Amino acid sequence: MRKLIFVRHGLSEWNALNQFTGWVDVDLSEKGVEEAKSAGKKIKEAGIQLDVAYTSVLKRAIKTCHYVLEESDQLWVPEYKSWRLNERHYGALQGLNKKETAEKYGDEQVREWRRSYDTLPPLLASDDPDSATQDRRYNNLERRTIPGGENLKVTLERAIPYWEDKIAPSLLKGDIVLVAAHGNSLRALAKHIENISDDDIMGLEIPTGQPLVYELNDDLSVSKKYYL
Amino acid sequence: MRKLIFVRHGLSEWNALNQFTGWVDVDLSEKGVEEAKSAGKKIKEAGIQLDVAYTSVLKRAIKTCHYVLEESDQLWVPEYKSWRLNERHYGALQGLNKKETAEKYGDEQVREWRRSYDTLPPLLASDDPDSATQDRRYNNLERRTIPGGENLKVTLERAIPYWEDKIAPSLLKGDIVLVAAHGNSLRALAKHIENISDDDIMGLEIPTGQPLVYELNDDLSVSKKYYL
Repeated sequence: MRKLIFVRHGLSEWNALNQFTGWVDVDLSEKGVEEAKSAGKKIKEAGIQLDVAYTSVLKRAIKTCHYVLEESDQLWVPEYKSWRLNERHYGALQGLNKKETAEKYGDEQVREWRRSYDTLPPLLASDDPDSATQDRRYNNLERRTIPGGENLKVTLERAIPYWEDKIAPSLLKGDIVLVAAHGNSLRALAKHIENISDDDIMGLEIPTGQPLVYELNDDLSVSKKYYL
Repeated sequence: MRKLIFVRHGLSEWNALNQFTGWVDVDLSEKGVEEAKSAGKKIKEAGIQLDVAYTSVLKRAIKTCHYVLEESDQLWVPEYKSWRLNERHYGALQGLNKKETAEKYGDEQVREWRRSYDTLPPLLASDDPDSATQDRRYNNLERRTIPGGENLKVTLERAIPYWEDKIAPSLLKGDIVLVAAHGNSLRALAKHIENISDDDIMGLEIPTGQPLVYELNDDLSVSKKYYL
């Protein structure tokens, strides 16, 4: 049975501050580290032998990946990092406190930014000092490829090519695959895998630090889905 | 200027026990973790911006690599793991205490195993439960490729193809490269890079946790060599 395991990273240092994070490279909190280790222990207890791991270029996902691999005694497993698995880019909202943002823009507007499938947040200009264009980890991307803000639709459109070119081929050749990533990049992959509609996808919450296992048929349709 | 940085992993849990380690997947000691973090801080202070990292499939080197990348704020850098960068395989001596081995085989014999370029240690049979053939991380290797014991010569012969196919091409295209590995795999690479003779190579000790920087000319000959 083909197997795919999602682990959503746990609490970051900005969760406590209730700030929009997105592509800002915030570290895991102590609780987030514990959540990642606990995910690794569950994978070990379930006897899951991974062949390959995919993660984003943001440290909260990468560290989650490392803790999961270490706690399950398979730190040697090949690991690949891609910006395509990054969290949704929250544009000019990144770094803002959610409560203050609601006071400034109104609850309704903030709810729409957070819950609509295709409403873009206010964008960050590409010459803004906070723009990802200023970060050398994205130097190998054409400038116009680097987002200034994303909705889930755009997040999905840039995540799926990585699914198609890397993750799906791994699964098709029989690898047991770990993806350690973010709420919205995992949601985007889940939408694709489970054929979830645009209307329903925002209702899907993958809990942090709880390994989500997909057992897949040969055509990568879902046979079973469960949390460890 | 092309740049290559070696970091030899620090103290492992077996160093304290004075045991032959080789391919046994022993963890870093607390002191080893500190050495790795300190190497990362030095790389950060030197302003070295890495493009790619190579390490072995043994956790003491992998964790050293992760600590170095994390402490230098570049955990997102692509990382590749290969058995070809593993420590020298110490054959049937793995897990034995060095003092007891000396009492059993004599000081002279043990010195020869440790210091000769081309004397093999007693080999581990491929059906021995301790053989690497029993470890799934080597499942993609043909059985006869998996060593039962190595001298430095054999270590070099299996490490250099990785230099030729991965590390040197990275350097030739201008990448700044980190190699986080082991005393003997780094010694093997250093022998190749610096054209050190068979007689002289056993005298080369790369200290643990101290980043060794090679500045290389366009043909990868050494322009400068220094420790951070």
